[in-house]
Amino acid sequence: MLNFELVNPVKILFGKGEITKIKKLVPKQANVLLLYGKGSIKKNGVYDQVTQALSGHNTIEFGGIPANPEYAILLEALAIIKKENISFILAVGGGSVIDGAKFLSSAALFEGENPWDILAKRIRTDKGMPFGTVLTLPATGSEMNSGSVISRKETGEKLAMGGPGLFPQFSVLDPTVVASIPNRQLANGITDAYTHVLEQYMTYPIGADLQDRFAESIMNSLIETAPKLMDNPSDYTIAANFMWCCTMALNGLIQKGVPTDWAIHAMGHELTALHGIDHARTLAIIAPRHYAYFLDNKKEKLAQYGERVWNITEGSLEERAKKAIDKTEYFFQSLDIPTRISEYATDYSETAEKVRSALENRGWTALGEHKNVTPDAVKAIVEASY
Amino acid sequence: MLNFELVNPVKILFGKGEITKIKKLVPKQANVLLLYGKGSIKKNGVYDQVTQALSGHNTIEFGGIPANPEYAILLEALAIIKKENISFILAVGGGSVIDGAKFLSSAALFEGENPWDILAKRIRTDKGMPFGTVLTLPATGSEMNSGSVISRKETGEKLAMGGPGLFPQFSVLDPTVVASIPNRQLANGITDAYTHVLEQYMTYPIGADLQDRFAESIMNSLIETAPKLMDNPSDYTIAANFMWCCTMALNGLIQKGVPTDWAIHAMGHELTALHGIDHARTLAIIAPRHYAYFLDNKKEKLAQYGERVWNITEGSLEERAKKAIDKTEYFFQSLDIPTRISEYATDYSETAEKVRSALENRGWTALGEHKNVTPDAVKAIVEASY
Repeated sequence: MLNFELVNPVKILFGKGEITKIKKLVPKQANVLLLYGKGSIKKNGVYDQVTQALSGHNTIEFGGIPANPEYAILLEALAIIKKENISFILAVGGGSVIDGAKFLSSAALFEGENPWDILAKRIRTDKGMPFGTVLTLPATGSEMNSGSVISRKETGEKLAMGGPGLFPQFSVLDPTVVASIPNRQLANGITDAYTHVLEQYMTYPIGADLQDRFAESIMNSLIETAPKLMDNPSDYTIAANFMWCCTMALNGLIQKGVPTDWAIHAMGHELTALHGIDHARTLAIIAPRHYAYFLDNKKEKLAQYGERVWNITEGSLEERAKKAIDKTEYFFQSLDIPTRISEYATDYSETAEKVRSALENRGWTALGEHKNVTPDAVKAIVEASY
Repeated sequence: MLNFELVNPVKILFGKGEITKIKKLVPKQANVLLLYGKGSIKKNGVYDQVTQALSGHNTIEFGGIPANPEYAILLEALAIIKKENISFILAVGGGSVIDGAKFLSSAALFEGENPWDILAKRIRTDKGMPFGTVLTLPATGSEMNSGSVISRKETGEKLAMGGPGLFPQFSVLDPTVVASIPNRQLANGITDAYTHVLEQYMTYPIGADLQDRFAESIMNSLIETAPKLMDNPSDYTIAANFMWCCTMALNGLIQKGVPTDWAIHAMGHELTALHGIDHARTLAIIAPRHYAYFLDNKKEKLAQYGERVWNITEGSLEERAKKAIDKTEYFFQSLDIPTRISEYATDYSETAEKVRSALENRGWTALGEHKNVTPDAVKAIVEASY
């Protein structure tokens, strides 16, 4: 097991009716920016619950944060934060809104001239403006971690930021919100969370038995929950388990003491930038090809995963590893998620080369747990994903 | 799934060599009380590492905290805290030393006249004196939770306390300390952690699939780790997994959203008070009898546990549940832990009645997830444990 540090101060309020508690959690004297997305919260009742809970607070709204939270729009929100002397941000939405709030939290206290530097120069945020979240779309885990990914259309960039100052003060997880989420987004949420686990697990054995078992637990639970959730997202018990799995998949716990990969995400981000493919779907496209390409490095862990998650017990190590990759791809497909680039885009013959050069231009010459996901490997993996 | 709140701000530093970091974690200007136990830290090198790391700090020592941390001794430490104007406590030891530090953290800021009231009147500690821990004996999980159990010989009491003010600021977990722990205490640690999981898991199904799987993961991992650990506690990987299992077994995570029992601990505490049996061993004595007595209430969960942890797949629900209880008892016995009171004490014919009346006298008329562990049930369970 590798040495690690773990600290996660986020206060989670989980369950039906918990939204009312934000009344006490948001500081009384704060000027609050209520940040949300494209307006689904006005249809599913969450907006009403939140504004009612905040009725005694001085609140200003900013809606319209899109999927892949866009820098240009966030700058508009930042201007309001400064003009209106905002001191607390409440993000109500999915991972994009929460990631947007994290950027704003950092940018609001940033002393440099250009807030994009936080992303471009990878400036760690040690202190941000306090913020809380009300999660409406389980998927990214952003509600219980200190990371964020921001997109910038102007330059085609999608960059990550983070730091200990970017943990939410609190996050409210009310599973009743799941009932109104369209199936496409449920499928994306399952795929996103599942791939988060894979990125932290599918490397090489290092004797971290409990972390492995926790990761396998999340995957087993998502596999068991997925078809029931797609059939009946109104089932509270199913929705609650789905929601908790997504949070636990990326709150930092299962990555402690183990090597991690994250090359799938790096490649996936480029596919979103190039073709506008939903983030989760890019992961479903890349993951099977990435594991096939690095079969030699990952076959022990793939076989362990095959046995403990998919009950694959027969065949050689390599055969079991390959079967495990197939099972993973079928799982994504069972959620109506196509796993080939050609199913999303028509003009993709240059995509592999574009992803290769984009990653090379960012100076990321080698990703993955062995730092061997070179630009050439990236090109081969993306090409195999056509 | 039940509604829940989760917050755990403890900073964990895990791994070989992490003890040196306390230099930066303990506030520079603090007057530090270095609290430890019977002196094993002076033999295994931990004392030297800690005092070296604290060489720039103003430190006063207090050693001699016994297993089942004793109120009378803690009062001596409390007097030193007040006299020496202590502002930070560093607990170096196992659960007893850490639990003692929590009592001192609370008592140091307590405004009442009698510190025992914190326990007797169950006063929640919202703010305590800051403290950190260096764990030397994995078992209780106290290093990452906000609870404590204190004993008082004078009255034969063993009572619990807690509150959000009693989380350690940091806990250092260096698995190399495991190499010097005697086998008896390793066995106790495994049993203690395992039973912590059982208390939070062995109730009734509530659809909290991920919590169930996490609990099963810890038990599976402890079962796999136990014989290797007993054979070779110097194996770093094994020791690290054991240590992390013990922490995760009682840091609050697996109890969120599920009913819990804790009646085994209540009965076990009385056996320690009456016969001086090691805490963990009292749990191994009571658990099989408790589950047999409440088989009807717990058989669904016992059978699930039997299948997922012990691969028991044949027989009726009740048969599988019973087999799972047997497997649990054999597991404790495989660690050289006798599971009958008669193997520890000679004069025990009144024990069941004494435990019954002790619990009744404390006003705990009904324990367990169904509040049906009545004093009479307690008597029957303890009697069956002879």
